[in-house]
Amino acid sequence: MNDLLPLTPGQHLLILNALNLTTAFMGGAALLFVLLRSQVASAYRLALSLMAAAVGMAGYHYWQILGGWRAAYVLQGGAYVPTGQPFNDASRYADWLGTVPLILAALMLVLDIGRRKSASLVARLAVAAVLMIALGYVGEVQREMTLRAVWGAASCVPFAYILFVLWSELRGVLSFETPRVRGLFSRLRVLLVASWSLHPLVYALPLLGLTGAPAFVLGQVGHSVADICAKVFYGLMIYAVAREKTLSEELLLGLDTPRELVRS
Amino acid sequence: MNDLLPLTPGQHLLILNALNLTTAFMGGAALLFVLLRSQVASAYRLALSLMAAAVGMAGYHYWQILGGWRAAYVLQGGAYVPTGQPFNDASRYADWLGTVPLILAALMLVLDIGRRKSASLVARLAVAAVLMIALGYVGEVQREMTLRAVWGAASCVPFAYILFVLWSELRGVLSFETPRVRGLFSRLRVLLVASWSLHPLVYALPLLGLTGAPAFVLGQVGHSVADICAKVFYGLMIYAVAREKTLSEELLLGLDTPRELVRS
Repeated sequence: MNDLLPLTPGQHLLILNALNLTTAFMGGAALLFVLLRSQVASAYRLALSLMAAAVGMAGYHYWQILGGWRAAYVLQGGAYVPTGQPFNDASRYADWLGTVPLILAALMLVLDIGRRKSASLVARLAVAAVLMIALGYVGEVQREMTLRAVWGAASCVPFAYILFVLWSELRGVLSFETPRVRGLFSRLRVLLVASWSLHPLVYALPLLGLTGAPAFVLGQVGHSVADICAKVFYGLMIYAVAREKTLSEELLLGLDTPRELVRS
Repeated sequence: MNDLLPLTPGQHLLILNALNLTTAFMGGAALLFVLLRSQVASAYRLALSLMAAAVGMAGYHYWQILGGWRAAYVLQGGAYVPTGQPFNDASRYADWLGTVPLILAALMLVLDIGRRKSASLVARLAVAAVLMIALGYVGEVQREMTLRAVWGAASCVPFAYILFVLWSELRGVLSFETPRVRGLFSRLRVLLVASWSLHPLVYALPLLGLTGAPAFVLGQVGHSVADICAKVFYGLMIYAVAREKTLSEELLLGLDTPRELVRS
Protein backbone atom coordinates (compact mmCIF):
# COMPACT_ATOMS: atom_id res chain seq x y z
CA MET A 1 0.00 0.00 0.00
CA ASN A 2 1.47 3.29 -1.06
CA ASP A 3 1.11 6.67 0.49
CA LEU A 4 0.25 8.34 -2.76
CA LEU A 5 1.96 11.57 -3.73
CA PRO A 6 0.51 14.38 -5.86
CA LEU A 7 1.44 13.89 -9.52
CA THR A 8 1.65 16.15 -12.54
CA PRO A 9 -0.90 15.41 -15.28
CA GLY A 10 1.94 13.98 -17.40
CA GLN A 11 3.00 11.56 -14.65
CA HIS A 12 -0.57 10.47 -13.94
CA LEU A 13 -1.23 9.94 -17.63
CA LEU A 14 1.94 7.93 -18.15
CA ILE A 15 0.91 5.39 -15.51
CA LEU A 16 -2.68 5.33 -16.82
CA ASN A 17 -1.42 4.59 -20.31
CA ALA A 18 1.08 1.98 -19.12
CA LEU A 19 -1.73 0.17 -17.28
CA ASN A 20 -4.02 0.47 -20.31
CA LEU A 21 -1.35 -0.83 -22.66
CA THR A 22 -0.57 -3.76 -20.39
CA THR A 23 -4.27 -4.68 -20.09
CA ALA A 24 -4.57 -4.59 -23.89
CA PHE A 25 -1.36 -6.60 -24.37
CA MET A 26 -2.56 -9.32 -22.00
CA GLY A 27 -5.98 -9.55 -23.64
CA GLY A 28 -4.45 -9.60 -27.11
CA ALA A 29 -1.96 -12.26 -26.07
CA ALA A 30 -4.76 -14.43 -24.64
CA LEU A 31 -6.47 -14.41 -28.05
CA LEU A 32 -3.16 -14.97 -29.82
CA PHE A 33 -2.15 -17.99 -27.72
CA VAL A 34 -5.60 -19.53 -28.20
CA LEU A 35 -5.19 -19.16 -31.97
CA LEU A 36 -1.60 -20.48 -32.02
CA ARG A 37 -2.56 -23.76 -30.38
CA SER A 38 -3.51 -25.31 -33.71
CA GLN A 39 -0.03 -24.54 -35.09
CA VAL A 40 1.77 -26.86 -32.69
CA ALA A 41 1.71 -30.62 -32.17
CA SER A 42 -0.83 -31.99 -29.75
CA ALA A 43 1.85 -32.62 -27.09
CA TYR A 44 2.56 -28.87 -26.80
CA ARG A 45 -1.01 -27.57 -26.75
CA LEU A 46 -1.30 -27.78 -22.98
CA ALA A 47 1.67 -25.38 -22.73
CA LEU A 48 0.00 -22.82 -25.01
CA SER A 49 -3.33 -23.29 -23.23
CA LEU A 50 -1.67 -22.53 -19.88
CA MET A 51 -0.08 -19.41 -21.40
CA ALA A 52 -3.49 -18.28 -22.71
CA ALA A 53 -5.01 -18.75 -19.25
CA ALA A 54 -2.07 -16.93 -17.61
CA VAL A 55 -2.25 -13.82 -19.79
CA GLY A 56 -6.05 -13.84 -19.53
CA MET A 57 -5.76 -13.78 -15.74
CA ALA A 58 -3.11 -11.06 -15.92
CA GLY A 59 -5.38 -9.01 -18.19
CA TYR A 60 -8.16 -9.21 -15.61
CA HIS A 61 -5.79 -8.09 -12.85
CA TYR A 62 -4.43 -5.18 -14.87
CA TRP A 63 -7.99 -4.09 -15.62
CA GLN A 64 -8.66 -4.12 -11.86
CA ILE A 65 -5.45 -2.17 -11.15
CA LEU A 66 -6.47 0.34 -13.83
CA GLY A 67 -9.83 0.86 -12.11
CA GLY A 68 -8.04 1.37 -8.81
CA TRP A 69 -5.70 3.90 -10.42
CA ARG A 70 -8.62 5.97 -11.78
CA ALA A 71 -10.25 5.98 -8.32
CA ALA A 72 -7.05 6.95 -6.50
CA TYR A 73 -6.59 10.44 -8.00
CA VAL A 74 -8.59 13.51 -8.85
CA LEU A 75 -7.51 16.49 -10.96
CA GLN A 76 -7.48 19.62 -8.81
CA GLY A 77 -5.96 22.97 -9.78
CA GLY A 78 -3.90 21.48 -12.58
CA ALA A 79 -2.39 18.64 -10.52
CA TYR A 80 -3.50 15.11 -9.69
CA VAL A 81 -4.05 14.75 -5.96
CA PRO A 82 -4.86 11.55 -4.06
CA THR A 83 -8.57 11.03 -3.35
CA GLY A 84 -7.81 8.98 -0.25
CA GLN A 85 -8.87 5.77 -2.01
CA PRO A 86 -5.89 3.47 -1.52
CA PHE A 87 -4.21 2.23 -4.72
CA ASN A 88 -4.00 -1.53 -4.32
CA ASP A 89 -0.61 -2.03 -5.88
CA ALA A 90 -0.26 -5.30 -3.98
CA SER A 91 -2.91 -6.89 -6.20
CA ARG A 92 0.00 -7.51 -8.58
CA TYR A 93 1.14 -10.14 -6.11
CA ALA A 94 -2.26 -11.83 -6.28
CA ASP A 95 -1.84 -11.97 -10.04
CA TRP A 96 1.66 -13.45 -9.87
CA LEU A 97 0.55 -16.04 -7.32
CA GLY A 98 -1.76 -17.45 -9.97
CA THR A 99 0.17 -16.84 -13.16
CA VAL A 100 3.84 -17.53 -12.33
CA PRO A 101 3.30 -21.25 -11.60
CA LEU A 102 1.38 -21.49 -14.90
CA ILE A 103 4.13 -19.95 -17.00
CA LEU A 104 6.81 -22.10 -15.34
CA ALA A 105 4.67 -25.20 -16.02
CA ALA A 106 4.32 -24.14 -19.67
CA LEU A 107 8.10 -24.02 -19.96
CA MET A 108 8.51 -27.55 -18.60
CA LEU A 109 5.79 -28.80 -20.97
CA VAL A 110 7.56 -27.75 -24.17
CA LEU A 111 10.76 -29.55 -23.21
CA ASP A 112 11.32 -33.29 -23.64
CA ILE A 113 11.25 -34.18 -19.98
CA GLY A 114 9.87 -37.54 -18.90
CA ARG A 115 6.47 -37.18 -17.28
CA ARG A 116 7.56 -38.14 -13.79
CA LYS A 117 10.51 -35.73 -13.82
CA SER A 118 8.38 -33.03 -15.39
CA ALA A 119 5.72 -33.33 -12.66
CA SER A 120 8.40 -33.12 -9.97
CA LEU A 121 10.00 -30.05 -11.57
CA VAL A 122 6.65 -28.28 -12.00
CA ALA A 123 5.72 -29.01 -8.38
CA ARG A 124 9.04 -27.74 -7.01
CA LEU A 125 9.05 -24.64 -9.21
CA ALA A 126 5.44 -23.85 -8.30
CA VAL A 127 6.12 -24.12 -4.56
CA ALA A 128 9.21 -21.92 -4.90
CA ALA A 129 7.24 -19.37 -6.95
CA VAL A 130 4.40 -19.22 -4.42
CA LEU A 131 6.91 -18.76 -1.58
CA MET A 132 8.80 -16.06 -3.49
CA ILE A 133 5.60 -14.11 -4.18
CA ALA A 134 4.01 -14.59 -0.74
CA LEU A 135 7.18 -13.37 1.03
CA GLY A 136 7.36 -10.41 -1.33
CA TYR A 137 3.69 -9.58 -0.62
CA VAL A 138 4.29 -9.52 3.12
CA GLY A 139 7.24 -7.19 2.55
CA GLU A 140 5.24 -4.98 0.18
CA VAL A 141 2.55 -4.20 2.79
CA GLN A 142 5.10 -3.31 5.52
CA ARG A 143 5.59 0.36 6.30
CA GLU A 144 8.83 -0.18 8.19
CA MET A 145 11.83 -0.14 5.82
CA THR A 146 13.89 -2.69 7.78
CA LEU A 147 11.02 -5.18 7.65
CA ARG A 148 10.58 -4.48 3.95
CA ALA A 149 14.26 -5.29 3.42
CA VAL A 150 14.12 -8.49 5.48
CA TRP A 151 11.03 -9.90 3.75
CA GLY A 152 12.42 -8.85 0.39
CA ALA A 153 15.68 -10.67 1.06
CA ALA A 154 13.76 -13.77 2.18
CA SER A 155 11.82 -13.66 -1.08
CA CYS A 156 15.10 -13.79 -3.02
CA VAL A 157 15.91 -17.26 -1.66
CA PRO A 158 13.15 -19.12 -3.58
CA PHE A 159 13.93 -16.88 -6.60
CA ALA A 160 17.51 -18.14 -6.49
CA TYR A 161 16.22 -21.72 -6.24
CA ILE A 162 14.13 -21.24 -9.39
CA LEU A 163 17.18 -19.94 -11.25
CA PHE A 164 19.20 -22.90 -9.98
CA VAL A 165 16.61 -25.34 -11.35
CA LEU A 166 16.41 -23.58 -14.71
CA TRP A 167 20.19 -23.51 -15.15
CA SER A 168 21.55 -26.51 -13.38
CA GLU A 169 18.84 -29.16 -13.29
CA LEU A 170 17.69 -28.64 -16.86
CA ARG A 171 21.17 -29.03 -18.33
CA GLY A 172 20.77 -32.80 -18.76
CA VAL A 173 17.30 -32.43 -20.25
CA LEU A 174 18.45 -29.94 -22.85
CA SER A 175 21.03 -32.33 -24.29
CA PHE A 176 18.12 -34.23 -25.94
CA GLU A 177 17.00 -31.12 -27.81
CA THR A 178 18.20 -29.85 -31.19
CA PRO A 179 20.74 -26.98 -31.20
CA ARG A 180 18.03 -24.65 -32.47
CA VAL A 181 15.72 -25.50 -29.56
CA ARG A 182 18.62 -25.14 -27.12
CA GLY A 183 19.33 -21.69 -28.56
CA LEU A 184 15.68 -20.63 -28.20
CA PHE A 185 15.57 -21.98 -24.67
CA SER A 186 18.71 -20.06 -23.67
CA ARG A 187 17.17 -16.81 -24.90
CA LEU A 188 13.89 -17.65 -23.15
CA ARG A 189 15.75 -18.15 -19.87
CA VAL A 190 17.54 -14.82 -20.23
CA LEU A 191 14.22 -13.06 -20.95
CA LEU A 192 12.74 -14.66 -17.83
CA VAL A 193 15.57 -13.60 -15.51
CA ALA A 194 15.83 -10.10 -16.97
CA SER A 195 12.10 -9.40 -16.74
CA TRP A 196 11.63 -11.00 -13.31
CA SER A 197 14.57 -9.01 -11.94
CA LEU A 198 12.80 -5.72 -12.68
CA HIS A 199 10.27 -6.47 -9.91
CA PRO A 200 12.81 -6.69 -7.03
CA LEU A 201 14.47 -3.56 -8.43
CA VAL A 202 11.16 -1.67 -8.19
CA TYR A 203 10.59 -3.22 -4.76
CA ALA A 204 13.98 -1.90 -3.64
CA LEU A 205 13.37 1.71 -4.74
CA PRO A 206 11.96 2.85 -1.35
CA LEU A 207 14.82 1.02 0.40
CA LEU A 208 17.25 3.13 -1.61
CA GLY A 209 15.47 6.27 -0.44
CA LEU A 210 13.90 6.82 -3.87
CA THR A 211 10.39 7.72 -2.77
CA GLY A 212 9.49 10.80 -4.81
CA ALA A 213 6.93 10.99 -7.59
CA PRO A 214 9.44 10.24 -10.40
CA ALA A 215 10.58 7.04 -8.64
CA PHE A 216 6.94 6.01 -8.16
CA VAL A 217 6.16 6.56 -11.84
CA LEU A 218 9.29 4.65 -12.83
CA GLY A 219 8.26 1.78 -10.56
CA GLN A 220 4.73 1.54 -11.98
CA VAL A 221 5.93 1.63 -15.56
CA GLY A 222 8.71 -0.84 -14.67
CA HIS A 223 6.24 -3.38 -13.27
CA SER A 224 4.11 -3.11 -16.42
CA VAL A 225 7.03 -3.50 -18.82
CA ALA A 226 8.35 -6.44 -16.80
CA ASP A 227 4.93 -8.13 -16.84
CA ILE A 228 4.58 -7.70 -20.60
CA CYS A 229 8.05 -9.21 -21.15
CA ALA A 230 7.57 -12.05 -18.67
CA LYS A 231 4.18 -13.06 -20.06
CA VAL A 232 3.58 -11.87 -23.61
CA PHE A 233 7.08 -12.09 -25.12
CA TYR A 234 7.85 -15.11 -22.97
CA GLY A 235 4.69 -16.80 -24.32
CA LEU A 236 5.73 -16.03 -27.88
CA MET A 237 9.06 -17.74 -27.21
CA ILE A 238 7.23 -20.74 -25.72
CA TYR A 239 5.33 -20.83 -29.02
CA ALA A 240 8.59 -20.57 -30.98
CA VAL A 241 10.03 -23.59 -29.15
CA ALA A 242 6.82 -25.61 -29.62
CA ARG A 243 6.57 -24.67 -33.31
CA GLU A 244 10.22 -25.53 -33.93
CA LYS A 245 9.77 -28.95 -32.37
CA THR A 246 6.51 -29.53 -34.23
CA LEU A 247 8.19 -28.84 -37.56
CA SER A 248 11.19 -31.09 -36.81
CA GLU A 249 8.88 -33.91 -35.80
CA GLU A 250 6.77 -33.55 -38.94
CA LEU A 251 9.94 -33.69 -41.03
CA LEU A 252 11.06 -36.80 -39.18
CA LEU A 253 7.71 -38.53 -39.67
CA GLY A 254 7.59 -37.42 -43.31
CA LEU A 255 4.14 -36.00 -42.68
CA ASP A 256 4.78 -32.79 -44.47
CA THR A 257 7.47 -30.69 -46.08
CA PRO A 258 7.48 -27.89 -43.55
CA ARG A 259 8.02 -24.75 -45.57
CA GLU A 260 9.37 -22.82 -42.64
CA LEU A 261 12.23 -25.31 -42.24
CA VAL A 262 13.00 -25.43 -45.95
CA ARG A 263 13.12 -21.68 -46.17
CA SER A 264 15.46 -21.21 -43.25
CA MET B 1 -24.47 -13.18 7.20
CA ASN B 2 -21.67 -11.72 9.27
CA ASP B 3 -21.65 -8.90 11.72
CA LEU B 4 -18.67 -7.22 10.16
CA LEU B 5 -15.80 -6.02 12.31
CA PRO B 6 -13.47 -3.09 11.63
CA LEU B 7 -10.35 -4.25 9.77
CA THR B 8 -6.84 -2.89 9.29
CA PRO B 9 -5.96 -1.87 5.72
CA GLY B 10 -3.75 -4.96 5.45
CA GLN B 11 -6.58 -7.31 6.48
CA HIS B 12 -9.08 -5.65 4.15
CA LEU B 13 -6.58 -5.78 1.31
CA LEU B 14 -5.75 -9.44 1.86
CA ILE B 15 -9.40 -10.44 1.47
CA LEU B 16 -9.81 -8.13 -1.55
CA ASN B 17 -6.78 -9.70 -3.21
CA ALA B 18 -7.87 -13.24 -2.35
CA LEU B 19 -11.28 -12.58 -3.95
CA ASN B 20 -9.64 -10.97 -6.97
CA LEU B 21 -7.22 -13.86 -7.40
CA THR B 22 -10.01 -16.43 -7.10
CA THR B 23 -12.12 -14.59 -9.70
CA ALA B 24 -9.12 -14.52 -12.05
CA PHE B 25 -8.32 -18.19 -11.40
CA MET B 26 -11.89 -19.27 -12.17
CA GLY B 27 -12.03 -17.22 -15.37
CA GLY B 28 -8.60 -18.45 -16.48
CA ALA B 29 -9.62 -22.04 -15.74
CA ALA B 30 -12.83 -21.66 -17.78
CA LEU B 31 -10.73 -20.66 -20.80
CA LEU B 32 -8.22 -23.44 -20.08
CA PHE B 33 -10.81 -26.22 -19.80
CA VAL B 34 -12.50 -25.09 -23.02
CA LEU B 35 -9.10 -25.28 -24.77
CA LEU B 36 -8.22 -28.65 -23.29
CA ARG B 37 -11.37 -30.36 -24.62
CA SER B 38 -9.70 -31.03 -27.97
CA GLN B 39 -6.83 -32.83 -26.22
CA VAL B 40 -9.01 -35.66 -24.91
CA ALA B 41 -11.05 -38.37 -26.60
CA SER B 42 -14.64 -37.58 -27.46
CA ALA B 43 -15.91 -39.71 -24.57
CA TYR B 44 -14.29 -37.41 -22.00
CA ARG B 45 -15.22 -34.05 -23.49
CA LEU B 46 -18.47 -33.80 -21.56
CA ALA B 47 -16.43 -33.99 -18.33
CA LEU B 48 -14.19 -31.09 -19.38
CA SER B 49 -17.17 -29.11 -20.63
CA LEU B 50 -18.88 -29.51 -17.26
CA MET B 51 -15.68 -28.34 -15.54
CA ALA B 52 -15.49 -25.29 -17.83
CA ALA B 53 -19.10 -24.41 -16.99
CA ALA B 54 -18.49 -24.96 -13.26
CA VAL B 55 -15.48 -22.65 -13.04
CA GLY B 56 -17.22 -20.10 -15.26
CA MET B 57 -20.13 -20.05 -12.81
CA ALA B 58 -17.76 -19.84 -9.86
CA GLY B 59 -15.93 -16.92 -11.48
CA TYR B 60 -19.23 -15.05 -11.79
CA HIS B 61 -20.06 -15.69 -8.15
CA TYR B 62 -16.63 -14.57 -6.95
CA TRP B 63 -16.96 -11.40 -9.00
CA GLN B 64 -20.28 -10.75 -7.24
CA ILE B 65 -18.74 -11.47 -3.83
CA LEU B 66 -15.90 -9.06 -4.71
CA GLY B 67 -18.41 -6.32 -5.49
CA GLY B 68 -20.13 -7.00 -2.17
CA TRP B 69 -16.80 -6.80 -0.37
CA ARG B 70 -16.02 -3.39 -1.88
CA ALA B 71 -19.44 -2.08 -0.83
CA ALA B 72 -19.23 -3.43 2.71
CA TYR B 73 -16.34 -1.28 3.93
CA VAL B 74 -15.14 2.28 3.81
CA LEU B 75 -11.71 3.66 4.76
CA GLN B 76 -12.07 6.03 7.70
CA GLY B 77 -9.21 7.42 9.74
CA GLY B 78 -6.77 4.76 8.59
CA ALA B 79 -9.04 1.78 9.29
CA TYR B 80 -11.71 -0.03 7.27
CA VAL B 81 -15.09 0.27 8.97
CA PRO B 82 -18.34 -1.45 7.93
CA THR B 83 -20.62 0.74 5.80
CA GLY B 84 -23.68 -1.11 7.04
CA GLN B 85 -24.09 -2.85 3.66
CA PRO B 86 -24.25 -6.54 4.60
CA PHE B 87 -21.57 -8.75 3.08
CA ASN B 88 -23.45 -11.65 1.51
CA ASP B 89 -20.98 -14.38 2.35
CA ALA B 90 -23.73 -16.96 2.00
CA SER B 91 -23.75 -16.44 -1.77
CA ARG B 92 -20.90 -18.95 -1.73
CA TYR B 93 -23.56 -21.56 -0.96
CA ALA B 94 -25.53 -20.50 -4.04
CA ASP B 95 -22.37 -21.09 -6.06
CA TRP B 96 -21.73 -24.52 -4.57
CA LEU B 97 -25.35 -25.57 -5.12
CA GLY B 98 -24.77 -25.16 -8.84
CA THR B 99 -21.14 -26.17 -9.23
CA VAL B 100 -20.61 -29.12 -6.84
CA PRO B 101 -23.01 -31.49 -8.66
CA LEU B 102 -21.24 -30.53 -11.91
CA ILE B 103 -17.77 -31.34 -10.65
CA LEU B 104 -18.91 -34.64 -9.15
CA ALA B 105 -20.57 -35.55 -12.46
CA ALA B 106 -17.32 -34.69 -14.28
CA LEU B 107 -15.48 -37.17 -12.06
CA MET B 108 -17.91 -39.99 -12.85
CA LEU B 109 -17.66 -39.20 -16.58
CA VAL B 110 -13.89 -39.75 -16.83
CA LEU B 111 -14.11 -43.18 -15.23
CA ASP B 112 -15.11 -46.33 -17.10
CA ILE B 113 -18.45 -46.80 -15.47
CA GLY B 114 -21.29 -48.31 -17.41
CA ARG B 115 -23.79 -45.66 -18.43
CA ARG B 116 -26.61 -46.97 -16.26
CA LYS B 117 -24.41 -47.18 -13.17
CA SER B 118 -22.86 -43.81 -13.94
CA ALA B 119 -26.27 -42.11 -14.15
CA SER B 120 -27.27 -43.63 -10.81
CA LEU B 121 -24.02 -42.52 -9.14
CA VAL B 122 -24.29 -38.97 -10.54
CA ALA B 123 -27.89 -38.72 -9.36
CA ARG B 124 -27.11 -39.94 -5.84
CA LEU B 125 -24.00 -37.76 -5.50
CA ALA B 126 -25.88 -34.70 -6.79
CA VAL B 127 -28.74 -35.18 -4.30
CA ALA B 128 -26.23 -35.65 -1.45
CA ALA B 129 -24.30 -32.53 -2.54
CA VAL B 130 -27.46 -30.40 -2.71
CA LEU B 131 -28.51 -31.62 0.76
CA MET B 132 -25.03 -30.99 2.19
CA ILE B 133 -24.96 -27.44 0.87
CA ALA B 134 -28.59 -26.58 1.70
CA LEU B 135 -28.18 -27.76 5.31
CA GLY B 136 -24.92 -25.81 5.59
CA TYR B 137 -26.65 -22.70 4.22
CA VAL B 138 -29.39 -22.88 6.83
CA GLY B 139 -26.72 -23.16 9.53
CA GLU B 140 -24.70 -20.30 8.07
CA VAL B 141 -27.57 -17.80 8.40
CA GLN B 142 -28.33 -18.75 12.04
CA ARG B 143 -27.20 -16.34 14.70
CA GLU B 144 -27.63 -18.84 17.50
CA MET B 145 -24.48 -20.95 17.95
CA THR B 146 -26.31 -24.12 19.02
CA LEU B 147 -28.45 -24.01 15.89
CA ARG B 148 -25.34 -23.37 13.79
CA ALA B 149 -23.74 -26.48 15.30
CA VAL B 150 -26.83 -28.65 14.75
CA TRP B 151 -27.31 -27.66 11.09
CA GLY B 152 -23.58 -27.99 10.51
CA ALA B 153 -23.56 -31.50 11.94
CA ALA B 154 -26.59 -32.41 9.79
CA SER B 155 -24.71 -31.15 6.73
CA CYS B 156 -21.85 -33.56 7.51
CA VAL B 157 -24.11 -36.58 6.99
CA PRO B 158 -24.49 -36.18 3.20
CA PHE B 159 -20.78 -35.19 3.07
CA ALA B 160 -19.93 -38.53 4.68
CA TYR B 161 -22.21 -40.30 2.18
CA ILE B 162 -20.32 -38.68 -0.72
CA LEU B 163 -17.01 -39.86 0.74
CA PHE B 164 -18.48 -43.35 1.18
CA VAL B 165 -19.48 -43.47 -2.49
CA LEU B 166 -16.08 -42.21 -3.66
CA TRP B 167 -14.15 -44.71 -1.56
CA SER B 168 -16.30 -47.77 -1.25
CA GLU B 169 -18.62 -47.87 -4.24
CA LEU B 170 -16.01 -46.90 -6.77
CA ARG B 171 -13.56 -49.60 -5.70
CA GLY B 172 -14.99 -52.11 -8.17
CA VAL B 173 -15.06 -49.60 -10.99
CA LEU B 174 -11.43 -48.65 -10.51
CA SER B 175 -10.21 -52.22 -11.01
CA PHE B 176 -10.85 -51.76 -14.75
CA GLU B 177 -8.50 -48.79 -14.93
CA THR B 178 -4.73 -48.81 -15.52
CA PRO B 179 -2.47 -48.39 -12.46
CA ARG B 180 -1.59 -44.89 -13.63
CA VAL B 181 -5.24 -43.84 -13.80
CA ARG B 182 -5.86 -45.42 -10.40
CA GLY B 183 -2.93 -43.41 -9.00
CA LEU B 184 -4.27 -40.15 -10.48
CA PHE B 185 -7.75 -40.93 -9.18
CA SER B 186 -6.44 -41.56 -5.66
CA ARG B 187 -4.72 -38.19 -5.62
CA LEU B 188 -7.84 -36.53 -7.04
CA ARG B 189 -9.92 -38.00 -4.23
CA VAL B 190 -7.46 -36.75 -1.60
CA LEU B 191 -7.51 -33.27 -3.16
CA LEU B 192 -11.31 -33.30 -3.08
CA VAL B 193 -11.56 -34.31 0.58
CA ALA B 194 -8.78 -31.95 1.72
CA SER B 195 -10.21 -28.93 -0.09
CA TRP B 196 -13.84 -29.64 0.80
CA SER B 197 -12.89 -30.09 4.47
CA LEU B 198 -11.62 -26.50 4.65
CA HIS B 199 -15.21 -25.23 4.35
CA PRO B 200 -16.57 -26.97 7.48
CA LEU B 201 -13.41 -25.84 9.31
CA VAL B 202 -14.16 -22.21 8.42
CA TYR B 203 -17.82 -22.82 9.29
CA ALA B 204 -16.75 -24.09 12.72
CA LEU B 205 -14.55 -21.06 13.57
CA PRO B 206 -17.39 -19.13 15.32
CA LEU B 207 -18.39 -22.32 17.16
CA LEU B 208 -14.86 -22.50 18.56
CA GLY B 209 -15.20 -18.93 19.77
CA LEU B 210 -12.85 -17.63 17.07
CA THR B 211 -14.79 -14.54 16.05
CA GLY B 212 -12.20 -11.74 15.90
CA ALA B 213 -10.93 -10.00 12.78
CA PRO B 214 -7.97 -12.40 12.25
CA ALA B 215 -10.29 -15.43 12.34
CA PHE B 216 -12.61 -13.71 9.86
CA VAL B 217 -9.72 -12.96 7.48
CA LEU B 218 -8.46 -16.53 7.81
CA GLY B 219 -11.93 -17.82 7.03
CA GLN B 220 -12.37 -15.70 3.91
CA VAL B 221 -8.94 -16.62 2.57
CA GLY B 222 -9.59 -20.26 3.51
CA HIS B 223 -12.83 -20.38 1.50
CA SER B 224 -11.03 -18.91 -1.52
CA VAL B 225 -8.08 -21.30 -1.34
CA ALA B 226 -10.45 -24.25 -0.88
CA ASP B 227 -12.53 -23.19 -3.90
CA ILE B 228 -9.43 -22.81 -6.09
CA CYS B 229 -8.23 -26.29 -5.07
CA ALA B 230 -11.64 -27.93 -5.39
CA LYS B 231 -12.34 -26.46 -8.82
CA VAL B 232 -9.21 -25.36 -10.67
CA PHE B 233 -6.66 -27.94 -9.49
CA TYR B 234 -9.39 -30.58 -9.35
CA GLY B 235 -10.29 -29.77 -12.96
CA LEU B 236 -6.64 -30.07 -14.00
CA MET B 237 -6.56 -33.54 -12.46
CA ILE B 238 -9.79 -34.45 -14.27
CA TYR B 239 -7.93 -33.40 -17.44
CA ALA B 240 -4.91 -35.49 -16.44
CA VAL B 241 -7.09 -38.60 -16.06
CA ALA B 242 -8.89 -37.95 -19.37
CA ARG B 243 -5.62 -37.24 -21.21
CA GLU B 244 -3.96 -40.36 -19.80
CA LYS B 245 -6.87 -42.52 -20.93
CA THR B 246 -6.96 -40.84 -24.34
CA LEU B 247 -3.26 -41.59 -24.94
CA SER B 248 -3.58 -45.22 -23.82
CA GLU B 249 -6.56 -45.73 -26.10
CA GLU B 250 -4.75 -44.16 -29.06
CA LEU B 251 -1.81 -46.47 -28.43
CA LEU B 252 -4.13 -49.48 -28.26
CA LEU B 253 -5.86 -48.54 -31.48
CA GLY B 254 -2.54 -47.80 -33.17
CA LEU B 255 -3.89 -44.40 -34.15
CA ASP B 256 -0.77 -42.59 -33.19
CA THR B 257 2.54 -42.99 -31.41
CA PRO B 258 1.79 -40.77 -28.46
CA ARG B 259 5.09 -39.09 -27.68
CA GLU B 260 4.08 -38.31 -24.16
CA LEU B 261 3.81 -42.04 -23.41
CA VAL B 262 7.05 -42.91 -25.17
CA ARG B 263 8.97 -40.20 -23.36
CA SER B 264 7.89 -41.19 -19.88
